[in-house]
Amino acid sequence: MRKIKVCAVQFACSSNIKQNIKKADEMVHVACQNGANIVLLQELFSNIYFCQIENYDFFSLAEDVNNSILIKHYQQIAKKYHVVLPISFFEKDNNCYFNSLVVIDADGKILGLYRKSHIPTGQCYEEKFYFAPGDTGFKIFNTKYGKIGVAICWDQWFSECARIMTLQGAEILFYPTAIGSEPVLDKDSKNHWQNVMIGHAAANIIPVVASNRIGEEKIGNSSMTFFGSSFICDEFGNVKKQLNSVDEGYIIEEFDLDEVNKHRYSWGIFRDRRVDLYGDILKMSIKK
Amino acid sequence: MRKIKVCAVQFACSSNIKQNIKKADEMVHVACQNGANIVLLQELFSNIYFCQIENYDFFSLAEDVNNSILIKHYQQIAKKYHVVLPISFFEKDNNCYFNSLVVIDADGKILGLYRKSHIPTGQCYEEKFYFAPGDTGFKIFNTKYGKIGVAICWDQWFSECARIMTLQGAEILFYPTAIGSEPVLDKDSKNHWQNVMIGHAAANIIPVVASNRIGEEKIGNSSMTFFGSSFICDEFGNVKKQLNSVDEGYIIEEFDLDEVNKHRYSWGIFRDRRVDLYGDILKMSIKK
Repeated sequence: MRKIKVCAVQFACSSNIKQNIKKADEMVHVACQNGANIVLLQELFSNIYFCQIENYDFFSLAEDVNNSILIKHYQQIAKKYHVVLPISFFEKDNNCYFNSLVVIDADGKILGLYRKSHIPTGQCYEEKFYFAPGDTGFKIFNTKYGKIGVAICWDQWFSECARIMTLQGAEILFYPTAIGSEPVLDKDSKNHWQNVMIGHAAANIIPVVASNRIGEEKIGNSSMTFFGSSFICDEFGNVKKQLNSVDEGYIIEEFDLDEVNKHRYSWGIFRDRRVDLYGDILKMSIKK
Repeated sequence: MRKIKVCAVQFACSSNIKQNIKKADEMVHVACQNGANIVLLQELFSNIYFCQIENYDFFSLAEDVNNSILIKHYQQIAKKYHVVLPISFFEKDNNCYFNSLVVIDADGKILGLYRKSHIPTGQCYEEKFYFAPGDTGFKIFNTKYGKIGVAICWDQWFSECARIMTLQGAEILFYPTAIGSEPVLDKDSKNHWQNVMIGHAAANIIPVVASNRIGEEKIGNSSMTFFGSSFICDEFGNVKKQLNSVDEGYIIEEFDLDEVNKHRYSWGIFRDRRVDLYGDILKMSIKK
Protein backbone atom coordinates (compact mmCIF):
# COMPACT_ATOMS: atom_id res chain seq x y z
CA MET A 1 0.00 0.00 0.00
CA ARG A 2 1.38 3.37 -1.02
CA LYS A 3 -1.18 6.02 -0.23
CA ILE A 4 -0.66 9.62 -1.25
CA LYS A 5 -2.84 12.69 -1.11
CA VAL A 6 -2.88 14.99 -4.11
CA CYS A 7 -4.34 18.47 -4.19
CA ALA A 8 -5.48 20.96 -6.82
CA VAL A 9 -6.04 24.61 -5.92
CA GLN A 10 -7.78 27.39 -7.78
CA PHE A 11 -7.90 31.09 -7.18
CA ALA A 12 -8.21 34.43 -8.96
CA CYS A 13 -4.99 36.22 -9.93
CA SER A 14 -4.26 39.92 -10.20
CA SER A 15 -1.33 41.96 -11.47
CA ASN A 16 -0.10 42.17 -7.88
CA ILE A 17 2.54 39.43 -7.88
CA LYS A 18 3.16 39.51 -4.13
CA GLN A 19 -0.54 39.14 -3.45
CA ASN A 20 -0.84 36.16 -5.82
CA ILE A 21 2.08 34.43 -4.17
CA LYS A 22 0.66 35.12 -0.73
CA LYS A 23 -2.64 33.61 -1.79
CA ALA A 24 -0.90 30.56 -3.24
CA ASP A 25 1.14 30.15 -0.06
CA GLU A 26 -1.98 30.22 2.09
CA MET A 27 -3.56 27.57 -0.12
CA VAL A 28 -0.48 25.37 0.09
CA HIS A 29 -0.41 25.86 3.87
CA VAL A 30 -4.02 24.76 4.34
CA ALA A 31 -3.67 21.89 1.88
CA CYS A 32 -0.62 20.61 3.75
CA GLN A 33 -2.40 20.99 7.10
CA ASN A 34 -4.95 18.62 5.55
CA GLY A 35 -2.33 16.10 4.58
CA ALA A 36 -1.61 16.95 0.96
CA ASN A 37 1.64 15.43 -0.34
CA ILE A 38 1.60 17.03 -3.79
CA VAL A 39 -0.09 20.39 -4.39
CA LEU A 40 -0.81 21.61 -7.90
CA LEU A 41 -0.93 25.37 -8.40
CA GLN A 42 -2.27 26.95 -11.57
CA GLU A 43 -0.41 27.79 -14.75
CA LEU A 44 1.54 31.09 -14.41
CA PHE A 45 -0.24 31.73 -11.11
CA SER A 46 2.12 34.52 -10.00
CA ASN A 47 0.51 37.04 -12.32
CA ILE A 48 -2.44 37.79 -14.56
CA TYR A 49 -2.58 35.64 -17.66
CA PHE A 50 -0.67 38.22 -19.70
CA CYS A 51 -0.97 36.14 -22.91
CA GLN A 52 -4.47 37.54 -23.28
CA ILE A 53 -2.83 40.25 -25.38
CA GLU A 54 0.36 40.67 -27.39
CA ASN A 55 2.55 43.20 -25.57
CA TYR A 56 6.35 43.28 -25.68
CA ASP A 57 6.49 44.76 -22.18
CA PHE A 58 5.49 41.41 -20.69
CA PHE A 59 8.74 39.75 -21.81
CA SER A 60 10.36 41.48 -18.84
CA LEU A 61 8.43 39.16 -16.51
CA ALA A 62 10.47 36.14 -17.56
CA GLU A 63 13.06 34.58 -15.23
CA ASP A 64 16.07 32.34 -15.65
CA VAL A 65 15.38 28.97 -14.04
CA ASN A 66 18.65 29.17 -12.09
CA ASN A 67 17.98 32.67 -10.85
CA SER A 68 14.26 32.75 -10.21
CA ILE A 69 12.95 34.44 -7.08
CA LEU A 70 9.67 32.57 -7.53
CA ILE A 71 11.29 29.14 -7.68
CA LYS A 72 13.65 29.83 -4.77
CA HIS A 73 10.64 30.88 -2.70
CA TYR A 74 8.79 27.63 -3.43
CA GLN A 75 11.85 25.54 -2.72
CA GLN A 76 11.63 26.91 0.82
CA ILE A 77 7.91 26.21 1.01
CA ALA A 78 8.33 22.66 -0.30
CA LYS A 79 11.02 21.93 2.26
CA LYS A 80 9.02 23.49 5.09
CA TYR A 81 5.90 21.39 4.44
CA HIS A 82 7.60 18.30 2.94
CA VAL A 83 5.36 18.82 -0.07
CA VAL A 84 6.00 18.28 -3.77
CA LEU A 85 5.27 21.38 -5.85
CA PRO A 86 5.14 21.69 -9.63
CA ILE A 87 5.77 25.41 -10.18
CA SER A 88 4.71 27.02 -13.46
CA PHE A 89 6.72 30.08 -14.51
CA PHE A 90 7.66 32.25 -17.48
CA GLU A 91 11.19 31.18 -18.43
CA LYS A 92 13.90 33.15 -20.19
CA ASP A 93 16.92 31.25 -21.52
CA ASN A 94 19.25 33.50 -23.52
CA ASN A 95 17.11 34.63 -26.44
CA CYS A 96 14.35 32.07 -25.99
CA TYR A 97 11.28 32.37 -23.82
CA PHE A 98 9.32 29.34 -22.71
CA ASN A 99 6.16 28.49 -20.77
CA SER A 100 7.89 26.23 -18.26
CA LEU A 101 7.65 24.49 -14.96
CA VAL A 102 9.97 22.92 -12.45
CA VAL A 103 9.01 20.15 -10.09
CA ILE A 104 10.30 20.75 -6.58
CA ASP A 105 10.63 17.65 -4.42
CA ALA A 106 9.59 17.42 -0.77
CA ASP A 107 13.13 18.29 0.33
CA GLY A 108 13.14 21.54 -1.65
CA LYS A 109 15.37 20.28 -4.45
CA ILE A 110 14.52 20.91 -8.09
CA LEU A 111 13.93 17.59 -9.86
CA GLY A 112 13.86 19.00 -13.36
CA LEU A 113 12.52 21.46 -15.88
CA TYR A 114 9.73 20.94 -18.39
CA ARG A 115 8.93 23.34 -21.21
CA LYS A 116 5.37 23.39 -22.55
CA SER A 117 5.42 21.51 -25.84
CA HIS A 118 2.13 22.59 -27.40
CA ILE A 119 1.67 26.33 -27.69
CA PRO A 120 -1.77 27.76 -28.48
CA THR A 121 -2.69 30.97 -30.22
CA GLY A 122 -5.91 32.82 -31.03
CA GLN A 123 -7.70 35.72 -29.40
CA CYS A 124 -7.03 35.80 -25.62
CA TYR A 125 -4.52 32.93 -25.88
CA GLU A 126 -1.66 34.62 -27.75
CA GLU A 127 1.01 32.26 -26.45
CA LYS A 128 2.80 31.78 -29.77
CA PHE A 129 3.76 35.47 -29.48
CA TYR A 130 5.63 34.85 -26.21
CA PHE A 131 6.74 31.24 -26.04
CA ALA A 132 8.92 29.06 -28.21
CA PRO A 133 7.57 25.50 -28.44
CA GLY A 134 9.21 23.51 -25.64
CA ASP A 135 12.29 21.50 -26.50
CA THR A 136 12.52 19.25 -23.42
CA GLY A 137 10.09 16.59 -24.58
CA PHE A 138 7.53 15.13 -22.18
CA LYS A 139 8.87 14.36 -18.73
CA ILE A 140 8.17 12.55 -15.53
CA PHE A 141 9.62 13.40 -12.14
CA ASN A 142 10.59 10.82 -9.54
CA THR A 143 9.33 12.57 -6.40
CA LYS A 144 9.34 11.42 -2.80
CA TYR A 145 5.69 10.38 -3.16
CA GLY A 146 5.71 8.75 -6.58
CA LYS A 147 6.54 9.25 -10.23
CA ILE A 148 4.49 12.12 -11.60
CA GLY A 149 3.97 13.37 -15.11
CA VAL A 150 3.40 17.10 -15.42
CA ALA A 151 2.44 18.98 -18.57
CA ILE A 152 0.99 22.43 -19.07
CA CYS A 153 -2.47 23.59 -20.18
CA TRP A 154 -2.66 23.22 -24.00
CA ASP A 155 -0.55 20.04 -23.62
CA GLN A 156 -3.55 18.51 -21.89
CA TRP A 157 -5.48 18.41 -25.18
CA PHE A 158 -3.04 15.94 -26.76
CA SER A 159 -3.39 12.21 -26.16
CA GLU A 160 0.24 11.66 -27.23
CA CYS A 161 1.54 13.71 -24.30
CA ALA A 162 -0.47 11.77 -21.69
CA ARG A 163 0.44 8.45 -23.30
CA ILE A 164 4.17 9.15 -23.41
CA MET A 165 4.28 10.29 -19.78
CA THR A 166 2.52 7.04 -18.84
CA LEU A 167 4.92 4.97 -20.95
CA GLN A 168 7.74 6.69 -19.04
CA GLY A 169 6.28 5.34 -15.81
CA ALA A 170 4.13 8.22 -14.54
CA GLU A 171 1.77 7.21 -11.75
CA ILE A 172 -0.33 10.39 -11.71
CA LEU A 173 -0.66 13.17 -14.28
CA PHE A 174 -0.82 16.87 -13.35
CA TYR A 175 -1.94 19.72 -15.58
CA PRO A 176 -1.65 23.34 -14.41
CA THR A 177 -3.99 25.38 -16.58
CA ALA A 178 -5.32 28.81 -17.52
CA ILE A 179 -8.47 28.50 -19.59
CA GLY A 180 -11.71 30.42 -19.79
CA SER A 181 -13.91 32.39 -22.10
CA GLU A 182 -13.72 32.17 -25.87
CA PRO A 183 -14.28 35.66 -27.29
CA VAL A 184 -14.61 34.55 -30.92
CA LEU A 185 -15.71 30.91 -30.99
CA ASP A 186 -19.30 30.34 -29.87
CA LYS A 187 -18.26 27.84 -27.27
CA ASP A 188 -18.06 27.04 -23.56
CA SER A 189 -15.10 24.69 -23.53
CA LYS A 190 -15.40 23.52 -19.91
CA ASN A 191 -16.93 20.09 -20.63
CA HIS A 192 -14.77 19.57 -23.67
CA TRP A 193 -11.68 20.41 -21.63
CA GLN A 194 -12.66 18.01 -18.87
CA ASN A 195 -13.71 15.20 -21.24
CA VAL A 196 -10.29 15.16 -22.88
CA MET A 197 -8.51 14.68 -19.55
CA ILE A 198 -11.06 12.11 -18.36
CA GLY A 199 -10.11 10.27 -21.51
CA HIS A 200 -6.39 10.48 -20.75
CA ALA A 201 -7.06 9.05 -17.28
CA ALA A 202 -9.24 6.21 -18.56
CA ALA A 203 -7.09 5.34 -21.57
CA ASN A 204 -3.86 5.31 -19.58
CA ILE A 205 -5.42 4.02 -16.35
CA ILE A 206 -3.86 6.83 -14.37
CA PRO A 207 -5.33 9.52 -12.08
CA VAL A 208 -5.38 13.08 -13.43
CA VAL A 209 -5.20 16.33 -11.45
CA ALA A 210 -6.05 19.63 -13.16
CA SER A 211 -5.81 23.10 -11.64
CA ASN A 212 -7.29 26.17 -13.35
CA ARG A 213 -7.63 29.80 -12.31
CA ILE A 214 -10.94 31.65 -11.87
CA GLY A 215 -12.01 35.28 -12.15
CA GLU A 216 -12.18 38.01 -14.73
CA GLU A 217 -8.94 39.62 -15.89
CA LYS A 218 -8.79 42.86 -17.84
CA ILE A 219 -5.75 44.07 -19.73
CA GLY A 220 -6.24 47.29 -21.64
CA ASN A 221 -9.39 46.87 -23.74
CA SER A 222 -9.29 43.09 -23.52
CA SER A 223 -11.05 40.96 -20.92
CA MET A 224 -11.58 37.30 -20.22
CA THR A 225 -13.06 35.11 -17.49
CA PHE A 226 -11.48 31.85 -16.38
CA PHE A 227 -13.75 28.92 -15.60
CA GLY A 228 -11.95 27.17 -12.74
CA SER A 229 -13.59 23.73 -12.48
CA SER A 230 -10.34 22.25 -11.23
CA PHE A 231 -10.83 18.53 -10.72
CA ILE A 232 -9.25 15.22 -9.77
CA CYS A 233 -10.30 12.02 -11.50
CA ASP A 234 -9.34 8.44 -10.76
CA GLU A 235 -7.62 5.97 -13.06
CA PHE A 236 -10.92 5.01 -14.67
CA GLY A 237 -11.74 8.60 -15.59
CA ASN A 238 -14.35 9.08 -12.89
CA VAL A 239 -14.30 12.59 -11.41
CA LYS A 240 -13.77 12.25 -7.65
CA LYS A 241 -13.46 15.90 -6.65
CA GLN A 242 -14.28 19.11 -8.48
CA LEU A 243 -14.42 22.84 -7.78
CA ASN A 244 -16.97 25.16 -9.37
CA SER A 245 -16.32 27.92 -11.88
CA VAL A 246 -16.39 30.93 -9.53
CA ASP A 247 -15.06 30.11 -6.06
CA GLU A 248 -11.52 29.87 -4.77
CA GLY A 249 -10.66 26.66 -3.03
CA TYR A 250 -8.79 23.39 -3.06
CA ILE A 251 -9.59 19.72 -3.42
CA ILE A 252 -7.70 16.75 -2.02
CA GLU A 253 -8.00 13.12 -3.05
CA GLU A 254 -6.12 10.10 -1.76
CA PHE A 255 -4.84 7.37 -4.08
CA ASP A 256 -3.12 4.11 -3.30
CA LEU A 257 -0.52 4.08 -6.06
CA ASP A 258 0.09 0.34 -5.67
CA GLU A 259 -3.61 -0.29 -6.24
CA VAL A 260 -3.68 2.13 -9.20
CA ASN A 261 -0.63 0.51 -10.77
CA LYS A 262 -2.23 -2.92 -10.34
CA HIS A 263 -5.33 -1.71 -12.16
CA ARG A 264 -3.11 -0.37 -14.93
CA TYR A 265 -1.22 -3.55 -15.70
CA SER A 266 -4.07 -5.96 -15.03
CA TRP A 267 -6.34 -4.42 -17.65
CA GLY A 268 -3.89 -5.48 -20.36
CA ILE A 269 -3.74 -2.25 -22.38
CA PHE A 270 0.02 -1.94 -22.05
CA ARG A 271 0.46 -5.59 -23.00
CA ASP A 272 -1.56 -5.28 -26.20
CA ARG A 273 -0.42 -2.01 -27.77
CA ARG A 274 0.40 -2.44 -31.49
CA VAL A 275 3.44 -0.20 -31.76
CA ASP A 276 4.08 -1.69 -35.22
CA LEU A 277 0.88 0.05 -36.38
CA TYR A 278 1.36 3.46 -34.74
CA GLY A 279 3.87 5.02 -37.14
CA ASP A 280 1.27 7.34 -38.65
CA ILE A 281 1.01 9.16 -35.30
CA LEU A 282 4.22 10.90 -36.38
CA LYS A 283 2.47 12.54 -39.33
CA MET A 284 0.51 15.78 -39.25
CA SER A 285 -2.09 14.36 -41.61
CA ILE A 286 -2.50 11.25 -43.74
CA LYS A 287 -3.73 11.43 -47.31
CA LYS A 288 -6.34 8.73 -48.02
CA MET B 1 -24.59 21.73 -44.28
CA ARG B 2 -24.12 17.98 -44.49
CA LYS B 3 -26.48 16.32 -42.04
CA ILE B 4 -26.38 12.60 -41.45
CA LYS B 5 -28.14 10.34 -38.98
CA VAL B 6 -26.13 7.63 -37.28
CA CYS B 7 -27.55 4.75 -35.30
CA ALA B 8 -26.31 2.23 -32.74
CA VAL B 9 -28.33 -0.88 -31.95
CA GLN B 10 -28.07 -3.36 -29.11
CA PHE B 11 -29.69 -6.73 -28.59
CA ALA B 12 -29.12 -10.10 -26.97
CA CYS B 13 -27.60 -12.85 -29.09
CA SER B 14 -28.13 -16.61 -28.95
CA SER B 15 -26.52 -19.56 -30.67
CA ASN B 16 -29.34 -19.46 -33.22
CA ILE B 17 -27.62 -17.61 -36.07
CA LYS B 18 -30.76 -17.16 -38.17
CA GLN B 19 -32.60 -15.66 -35.23
CA ASN B 20 -29.75 -13.20 -34.51
CA ILE B 21 -29.69 -12.07 -38.12
CA LYS B 22 -33.48 -11.72 -38.17
CA LYS B 23 -33.28 -9.55 -35.05
CA ALA B 24 -30.52 -7.43 -36.55
CA ASP B 25 -32.50 -7.05 -39.78
CA GLU B 26 -35.55 -5.85 -37.88
CA MET B 27 -33.43 -3.31 -36.03
CA VAL B 28 -31.89 -2.04 -39.26
CA HIS B 29 -35.36 -1.85 -40.82
CA VAL B 30 -36.78 0.28 -38.00
CA ALA B 31 -33.67 2.46 -37.81
CA CYS B 32 -33.87 3.15 -41.54
CA GLN B 33 -37.60 3.90 -41.28
CA ASN B 34 -36.48 6.57 -38.80
CA GLY B 35 -33.97 8.03 -41.19
CA ALA B 36 -30.72 6.36 -40.16
CA ASN B 37 -27.98 6.64 -42.80
CA ILE B 38 -25.38 4.52 -41.02
CA VAL B 39 -26.37 1.72 -38.66
CA LEU B 40 -23.85 0.13 -36.33
CA LEU B 41 -24.49 -3.48 -35.32
CA GLN B 42 -22.59 -5.17 -32.52
CA GLU B 43 -19.32 -7.05 -32.70
CA LEU B 44 -19.83 -10.62 -33.96
CA PHE B 45 -23.61 -10.15 -33.65
CA SER B 46 -24.52 -13.24 -35.69
CA ASN B 47 -23.73 -15.59 -32.84
CA ILE B 48 -23.00 -15.89 -29.15
CA TYR B 49 -19.68 -14.37 -28.13
CA PHE B 50 -17.89 -17.70 -28.49
CA CYS B 51 -14.56 -16.24 -27.28
CA GLN B 52 -15.89 -16.65 -23.75
CA ILE B 53 -14.18 -20.05 -23.84
CA GLU B 54 -11.36 -21.69 -25.79
CA ASN B 55 -12.90 -24.36 -28.02
CA TYR B 56 -11.45 -25.54 -31.35
CA ASP B 57 -14.94 -26.31 -32.67
CA PHE B 58 -15.69 -22.61 -33.02
CA PHE B 59 -13.05 -22.15 -35.73
CA SER B 60 -15.60 -23.69 -38.10
CA LEU B 61 -17.73 -20.56 -37.77
CA ALA B 62 -15.23 -18.44 -39.71
CA GLU B 63 -15.93 -17.30 -43.27
CA ASP B 64 -13.84 -16.08 -46.18
CA VAL B 65 -14.61 -12.43 -46.84
CA ASN B 66 -15.23 -13.16 -50.54
CA ASN B 67 -17.55 -16.05 -49.82
CA SER B 68 -19.47 -14.98 -46.74
CA ILE B 69 -23.19 -15.64 -46.59
CA LEU B 70 -23.44 -13.05 -43.82
CA ILE B 71 -21.78 -10.29 -45.82
CA LYS B 72 -23.71 -11.06 -49.02
CA HIS B 73 -26.93 -10.84 -47.01
CA TYR B 74 -26.05 -7.40 -45.64
CA GLN B 75 -24.99 -6.15 -49.06
CA GLN B 76 -28.61 -6.73 -50.10
CA ILE B 77 -29.93 -5.00 -46.98
CA ALA B 78 -27.62 -2.01 -47.45
CA LYS B 79 -28.73 -1.59 -51.05
CA LYS B 80 -32.41 -2.00 -50.16
CA TYR B 81 -32.36 0.73 -47.51
CA HIS B 82 -29.55 2.89 -48.94
CA VAL B 83 -27.84 2.47 -45.59
CA VAL B 84 -24.15 2.13 -44.72
CA LEU B 85 -23.43 -0.98 -42.63
CA PRO B 86 -20.18 -1.90 -40.90
CA ILE B 87 -20.51 -5.70 -40.54
CA SER B 88 -18.41 -7.51 -37.95
CA PHE B 89 -17.60 -11.14 -38.73
CA PHE B 90 -15.22 -13.99 -37.92
CA GLU B 91 -12.81 -14.14 -40.87
CA LYS B 92 -10.81 -17.07 -42.21
CA ASP B 93 -8.01 -16.35 -44.69
CA ASN B 94 -6.03 -19.49 -45.52
CA ASN B 95 -4.51 -20.48 -42.19
CA CYS B 96 -5.19 -17.22 -40.38
CA TYR B 97 -8.30 -16.26 -38.49
CA PHE B 98 -9.16 -12.65 -37.76
CA ASN B 99 -11.79 -10.63 -35.91
CA SER B 100 -12.77 -8.52 -38.91
CA LEU B 101 -15.32 -6.22 -40.41
CA VAL B 102 -16.28 -4.93 -43.79
CA VAL B 103 -17.96 -1.61 -44.43
CA ILE B 104 -20.79 -1.91 -46.94
CA ASP B 105 -21.74 1.31 -48.70
CA ALA B 106 -25.30 2.50 -49.32
CA ASP B 107 -25.25 0.90 -52.79
CA GLY B 108 -24.38 -2.53 -51.38
CA LYS B 109 -20.73 -2.48 -52.43
CA ILE B 110 -17.98 -3.51 -50.03
CA LEU B 111 -15.69 -0.54 -49.38
CA GLY B 112 -12.98 -2.49 -47.61
CA LEU B 113 -11.91 -4.90 -44.92
CA TYR B 114 -10.52 -4.07 -41.47
CA ARG B 115 -8.96 -6.63 -39.16
CA LYS B 116 -9.06 -5.92 -35.41
CA SER B 117 -5.59 -4.77 -34.42
CA HIS B 118 -5.68 -5.14 -30.65
CA ILE B 119 -6.63 -8.62 -29.44
CA PRO B 120 -7.57 -9.14 -25.78
CA THR B 121 -7.25 -12.20 -23.66
CA GLY B 122 -8.18 -13.20 -20.11
CA GLN B 123 -11.08 -15.14 -18.68
CA CYS B 124 -14.24 -14.72 -20.81
CA TYR B 125 -12.31 -12.78 -23.49
CA GLU B 126 -10.08 -15.51 -24.93
CA GLU B 127 -9.62 -13.78 -28.27
CA LYS B 128 -5.90 -14.43 -28.59
CA PHE B 129 -6.84 -18.12 -28.89
CA TYR B 130 -8.89 -17.47 -32.02
CA PHE B 131 -7.65 -14.34 -33.74
CA ALA B 132 -4.33 -13.28 -35.18
CA PRO B 133 -3.62 -9.58 -34.53
CA GLY B 134 -4.96 -7.65 -37.52
CA ASP B 135 -2.51 -6.78 -40.29
CA THR B 136 -4.55 -4.17 -42.17
CA GLY B 137 -3.66 -1.17 -40.02
CA PHE B 138 -6.32 1.33 -39.00
CA LYS B 139 -8.70 2.32 -41.77
CA ILE B 140 -11.30 4.80 -42.81
CA PHE B 141 -14.03 4.21 -45.36
CA ASN B 142 -15.29 6.84 -47.77
CA THR B 143 -19.03 6.12 -47.64
CA LYS B 144 -21.91 7.86 -49.36
CA TYR B 145 -22.62 9.79 -46.15
CA GLY B 146 -19.12 10.69 -45.05
CA LYS B 147 -15.70 9.32 -44.17
CA ILE B 148 -16.01 6.94 -41.25
CA GLY B 149 -13.41 5.26 -39.09
CA VAL B 150 -14.37 1.85 -37.76
CA ALA B 151 -12.45 -0.23 -35.26
CA ILE B 152 -13.48 -3.17 -33.12
CA CYS B 153 -14.04 -3.48 -29.36
CA TRP B 154 -10.61 -3.79 -27.68
CA ASP B 155 -9.31 -1.32 -30.30
CA GLN B 156 -11.49 1.29 -28.63
CA TRP B 157 -9.23 1.32 -25.57
CA PHE B 158 -6.26 2.68 -27.52
CA SER B 159 -5.88 6.41 -28.15
CA GLU B 160 -3.47 5.72 -31.03
CA CYS B 161 -6.19 3.95 -33.03
CA ALA B 162 -8.69 6.82 -32.70
CA ARG B 163 -6.00 9.39 -33.44
CA ILE B 164 -4.76 7.68 -36.59
CA MET B 165 -8.29 7.24 -37.99
CA THR B 166 -8.85 10.97 -37.40
CA LEU B 167 -5.53 11.86 -39.04
CA GLN B 168 -6.70 9.81 -42.04
CA GLY B 169 -9.74 12.05 -42.34
CA ALA B 170 -12.42 10.18 -40.41
CA GLU B 171 -15.49 12.31 -39.66
CA ILE B 172 -17.17 9.89 -37.22
CA LEU B 173 -15.76 6.89 -35.35
CA PHE B 174 -17.68 3.62 -34.91
CA TYR B 175 -16.88 0.83 -32.46
CA PRO B 176 -18.83 -2.45 -32.55
CA THR B 177 -18.29 -4.11 -29.19
CA ALA B 178 -18.89 -7.15 -26.99
CA ILE B 179 -18.10 -6.35 -23.38
CA GLY B 180 -19.62 -7.28 -20.06
CA SER B 181 -18.89 -8.95 -16.78
CA GLU B 182 -15.41 -9.49 -15.42
CA PRO B 183 -15.32 -12.86 -13.69
CA VAL B 184 -11.90 -12.38 -12.08
CA LEU B 185 -11.22 -8.65 -11.74
CA ASP B 186 -13.33 -6.89 -9.14
CA LYS B 187 -14.60 -4.36 -11.61
CA ASP B 188 -17.61 -3.02 -13.46
CA SER B 189 -15.93 -1.64 -16.55
CA LYS B 190 -18.93 0.22 -17.99
CA ASN B 191 -17.89 3.74 -16.96
CA HIS B 192 -14.24 3.08 -17.71
CA TRP B 193 -15.19 1.79 -21.17
CA GLN B 194 -17.33 4.83 -21.88
CA ASN B 195 -14.82 7.34 -20.46
CA VAL B 196 -12.11 6.12 -22.83
CA MET B 197 -14.31 6.70 -25.88
CA ILE B 198 -15.57 10.04 -24.57
CA GLY B 199 -11.90 10.94 -24.45
CA HIS B 200 -11.31 9.85 -28.05
CA ALA B 201 -14.23 12.01 -29.15
CA ALA B 202 -13.10 15.07 -27.20
CA ALA B 203 -9.39 14.74 -28.01
CA ASN B 204 -9.99 14.23 -31.73
CA ILE B 205 -13.09 16.47 -31.91
CA ILE B 206 -15.08 13.74 -33.61
CA PRO B 207 -18.39 12.03 -32.77
CA VAL B 208 -18.19 8.44 -31.53
CA VAL B 209 -20.80 5.69 -31.91
CA ALA B 210 -20.50 2.50 -29.85
CA SER B 211 -22.73 -0.56 -30.04
CA ASN B 212 -22.59 -3.35 -27.45
CA ARG B 213 -24.66 -6.49 -26.92
CA ILE B 214 -26.75 -7.23 -23.81
CA GLY B 215 -27.88 -10.40 -22.09
CA GLU B 216 -26.40 -13.41 -20.36
CA GLU B 217 -24.65 -16.02 -22.47
CA LYS B 218 -23.76 -19.48 -21.20
CA ILE B 219 -21.32 -21.81 -22.91
CA GLY B 220 -20.71 -25.06 -21.06
CA ASN B 221 -19.87 -24.16 -17.49
CA SER B 222 -18.96 -20.59 -18.35
CA SER B 223 -21.30 -17.61 -18.25
CA MET B 224 -21.10 -13.89 -18.74
CA THR B 225 -23.45 -10.91 -18.95
CA PHE B 226 -22.97 -8.09 -21.44
CA PHE B 227 -23.68 -4.56 -20.28
CA GLY B 228 -25.08 -2.89 -23.38
CA SER B 229 -24.94 0.86 -22.65
CA SER B 230 -24.48 1.59 -26.34
CA PHE B 231 -24.08 5.31 -26.81
CA ILE B 232 -23.45 8.17 -29.21
CA CYS B 233 -21.40 11.17 -28.13
CA ASP B 234 -20.71 14.39 -29.94
CA GLU B 235 -17.35 15.84 -30.99
CA PHE B 236 -16.84 17.37 -27.53
CA GLY B 237 -17.31 14.05 -25.77
CA ASN B 238 -20.79 14.83 -24.48
CA VAL B 239 -23.07 11.76 -24.49
CA LYS B 240 -26.13 12.60 -26.60
CA LYS B 241 -27.94 9.26 -26.63
CA GLN B 242 -27.49 6.15 -24.54
CA LEU B 243 -29.19 2.80 -24.03
CA ASN B 244 -29.34 1.02 -20.67
CA SER B 245 -27.64 -2.23 -19.70
CA VAL B 246 -30.60 -4.61 -20.05
CA ASP B 247 -32.98 -3.58 -22.84
CA GLU B 248 -32.78 -4.11 -26.57
CA GLY B 249 -33.14 -1.00 -28.66
CA TYR B 250 -31.54 1.54 -30.91
CA ILE B 251 -30.48 5.17 -30.71
CA ILE B 252 -30.21 7.71 -33.53
CA GLU B 253 -28.40 11.02 -33.50
CA GLU B 254 -28.03 13.59 -36.26
CA PHE B 255 -24.75 15.37 -36.94
CA ASP B 256 -23.92 18.11 -39.39
CA LEU B 257 -20.52 16.92 -40.56
CA ASP B 258 -19.60 20.35 -41.95
CA GLU B 259 -20.25 21.86 -38.52
CA VAL B 260 -18.31 19.07 -36.79
CA ASN B 261 -15.36 19.47 -39.16
CA LYS B 262 -15.37 23.23 -38.53
CA HIS B 263 -15.20 22.62 -34.79
CA ARG B 264 -12.31 20.24 -35.39
CA TYR B 265 -10.04 22.57 -37.32
CA SER B 266 -11.00 25.77 -35.51
CA TRP B 267 -9.90 24.45 -32.10
CA GLY B 268 -6.32 24.28 -33.36
CA ILE B 269 -5.37 20.82 -32.06
CA PHE B 270 -4.39 19.54 -35.48
CA ARG B 271 -2.35 22.68 -36.15
CA ASP B 272 -0.32 22.38 -32.95
CA ARG B 273 0.56 18.68 -32.72
CA ARG B 274 4.29 18.18 -31.98
CA VAL B 275 5.01 15.19 -34.17
CA ASP B 276 8.72 15.79 -33.58
CA LEU B 277 8.14 14.82 -29.92
CA TYR B 278 5.90 11.78 -30.40
CA GLY B 279 8.50 9.17 -31.37
CA ASP B 280 8.28 7.43 -28.00
CA ILE B 281 4.69 6.40 -28.82
CA LEU B 282 6.31 3.67 -30.92
CA LYS B 283 7.86 2.07 -27.84
CA MET B 284 6.18 -0.43 -25.54
CA SER B 285 7.75 1.20 -22.49
CA ILE B 286 10.35 3.86 -21.80
CA LYS B 287 13.05 3.39 -19.19
CA LYS B 288 13.46 6.54 -17.07
